[in-house]
Amino acid sequence: MNTAPKYVWINNEIVPAAEAKIGVTDLSIHRGYGIFDFFKIIDNRPIFIDDHLNRFYRSAAAMNMEAGLNRQELKQAIRNLMEHNGMPDSAIKIILTGGYSEDGYTMGKPNLIIMQLRFKMEDPAEMKPMKLVTYNHVRQLPAIKTIDYIQAILLRPFMKENHADDVLYHYNNLISECPRANIFIVTENEIITPKDSILAGITRSKVLQLSIDNYRIIERNITLTDLQSAREAFVTSSSKNACPVIAIDSQNIGDGKPGKITGMISEKLTALMLDQVFS
Amino acid sequence: MNTAPKYVWINNEIVPAAEAKIGVTDLSIHRGYGIFDFFKIIDNRPIFIDDHLNRFYRSAAAMNMEAGLNRQELKQAIRNLMEHNGMPDSAIKIILTGGYSEDGYTMGKPNLIIMQLRFKMEDPAEMKPMKLVTYNHVRQLPAIKTIDYIQAILLRPFMKENHADDVLYHYNNLISECPRANIFIVTENEIITPKDSILAGITRSKVLQLSIDNYRIIERNITLTDLQSAREAFVTSSSKNACPVIAIDSQNIGDGKPGKITGMISEKLTALMLDQVFS
Repeated sequence: MNTAPKYVWINNEIVPAAEAKIGVTDLSIHRGYGIFDFFKIIDNRPIFIDDHLNRFYRSAAAMNMEAGLNRQELKQAIRNLMEHNGMPDSAIKIILTGGYSEDGYTMGKPNLIIMQLRFKMEDPAEMKPMKLVTYNHVRQLPAIKTIDYIQAILLRPFMKENHADDVLYHYNNLISECPRANIFIVTENEIITPKDSILAGITRSKVLQLSIDNYRIIERNITLTDLQSAREAFVTSSSKNACPVIAIDSQNIGDGKPGKITGMISEKLTALMLDQVFS
Repeated sequence: MNTAPKYVWINNEIVPAAEAKIGVTDLSIHRGYGIFDFFKIIDNRPIFIDDHLNRFYRSAAAMNMEAGLNRQELKQAIRNLMEHNGMPDSAIKIILTGGYSEDGYTMGKPNLIIMQLRFKMEDPAEMKPMKLVTYNHVRQLPAIKTIDYIQAILLRPFMKENHADDVLYHYNNLISECPRANIFIVTENEIITPKDSILAGITRSKVLQLSIDNYRIIERNITLTDLQSAREAFVTSSSKNACPVIAIDSQNIGDGKPGKITGMISEKLTALMLDQVFS
């Protein structure tokens, strides 16, 4: 999907996407140093924006970076950009880079970039269930939403060779996360998501707050062996909500079809989202 | 040190540094995806350029990227840039990024950037000996010269708190490398550099080819405990050549002064370098 932006907000200016550029001495280009966040816009309403901005400022602080704008100013910048673009159903990506570096190693004043991307939430009923392939890797600084996806992108040919739609990282026999999504498994009476070496996703946190009759929804370590006895599995992210996982490493999860509990979670997430739109 | 470039080569154009920019949809900015190489220019002569270009093309291939220029074209581009800049003592940094991505995740046609940076080799006699502090970390993809230095830059406050000039990574009790340099230790009759989880530095490879009477120069794993009995230590890189290490984690190496063997290595490296200049 081409998500190319129309107008882009850079350091207090709104410019056409083709003119949206940063200088080549930026530390993101030299040293991969930067953080970001991403959230959906539905019917011109940003979804869970406060959760995302909380995390954005937490990521910036963890990386010793100043965002330059406070929360109110950042929200206003997003609003201005949205008015300029006129894309009621879309997504916002905010990137904060290490800034122009005098020596190619020392941080400068961060560059703040806000992009409104073409994006439309898929209808959950039409969402293609996913197959995953596991890979032994632990992300550096998993708790911070950095721009470091070098391993994930390098693994794309591996993913395709294995007929998978995404990679599931594991380490020391424990599964952690997909590069851009959290994972949940469903057992007889629990809905479980890994606790360690993960990015705490906003959608993940929403699922942890749901209630489903006869199920406990909890964070706990999950081993590779646990996957074999899972009845259902799904991944969560801002762009996928809850997407069924029907196979991992070519082994079916449950009966190899999207699960009932996953469907219930997906419905409840959609309701939460629409609550934001119509409130 | 401000190493800011004057003119920059981008995708077949030479432009003033202030106009040297890339679009914000580049995958280096979104996903930290890119590789680079760096070498010195002394008296208008690139030092060990073929070794560096070998590694540059190896890194690009390992990351599924096309450089866009073959070796001859790349050398010509470097020559053109050097003529434009007129900086006989400097350094060249070549960066190849993941390119403009339609969806912020899929690679585009890589952007190739060549920067000539202000840089002057320090006189080995005046080079400040270094103190290191160890840190438990293993770089992802250490063998590829990627732009991923996120952990190193995040550790700069830690380094300063520990009154150190650089960090030395270790993992599973084995030391590996500094973020931008390889390490060697000197024992009674060996000069040893770690073998695994490292970037194979060009200067490191030159040291491995030297001969020093009564010493074997070898690659072998080095434990944290081995550091305590080392007589000397030094780090190697294109910008530092061989720089003495006089303390690690506040423990002196040997007598806490630059070592004699380190000095011999440094002299021999300088001779090799000057050989390139006057040949």
